[in-house]
Amino acid sequence: MTIEEIDRLIADSMFVNIGFIDSTGNPSIRRAFCTWHKGIGKHLISTNTSSMHVQALLLNSDACLYFENSKAFEGICLQGKAIVHFEKEFKEMCWKDGDEQYYPKGVEDEDYCIIEFTAENGRYYRYDGIGNITKQEIGLFDHSKEYVDNYDRLMERGE
Amino acid sequence: MTIEEIDRLIADSMFVNIGFIDSTGNPSIRRAFCTWHKGIGKHLISTNTSSMHVQALLLNSDACLYFENSKAFEGICLQGKAIVHFEKEFKEMCWKDGDEQYYPKGVEDEDYCIIEFTAENGRYYRYDGIGNITKQEIGLFDHSKEYVDNYDRLMERGE
Repeated sequence: MTIEEIDRLIADSMFVNIGFIDSTGNPSIRRAFCTWHKGIGKHLISTNTSSMHVQALLLNSDACLYFENSKAFEGICLQGKAIVHFEKEFKEMCWKDGDEQYYPKGVEDEDYCIIEFTAENGRYYRYDGIGNITKQEIGLFDHSKEYVDNYDRLMERGE
Repeated sequence: MTIEEIDRLIADSMFVNIGFIDSTGNPSIRRAFCTWHKGIGKHLISTNTSSMHVQALLLNSDACLYFENSKAFEGICLQGKAIVHFEKEFKEMCWKDGDEQYYPKGVEDEDYCIIEFTAENGRYYRYDGIGNITKQEIGLFDHSKEYVDNYDRLMERGE
């Protein structure tokens, strides 16, 4: 896969699988909405502070994100760090109409937080080959990129 | 979710996401075909001995399997141990016509191996609630079950 194809796979995904290490030291996976991306290297996920994966990430920020398209037999596993943000700046940026059903107190609800994942490296899997991308390649590709939310575009496509 | 609904989710899946800890201690995910199940607690995955996840599991067998159905907004994360089998008994059981394209030397190809995952616990996620299942509940449900391969049934359904 080219880095442009990896970028397209991520941009066209509505969900991601988050891999993390739980409080007992065992690997765990949680699936989440993930439509905010800054190129390939940075991703935002709105979630509940009380959820098990957030509590685990607060203790151990080592994590991975796996974006995949089963129909195309392609996937990318990014390894890196997941930082949990409680700052209003992140929470306001990601807030969507309707989020009140999950967070009744609104943007300042203490159960509302934003996971920011930063990639250190990646490994892609496709029918035509497996390979790695480095932090340097990600940095070059992402240079001058800003955070973009693809949610509305994906909803319009009926994903 | 009831344990019967979890069993159905697993039996109707063609793929699974495997969570494991790589040789550097970081969480990683690999997607794989997974259609051989013994109830909820045991699962078989045919794969390449040389692949990164097998090499990692040989060093650290802590793993998880995440089965999900995005359309139904449901998923189950099973945590447990993944043992890599090279015995002919497992390799013959899982061999399919056409596997020669991946393993030219056939069933005895040293690059062909079978991961057997055994669950210690599970956590399910669905729109209507999150909850845990214990090893005891899995053991009771799986009592007297045998390994079954759902591949042909799923292919007939056009999955």
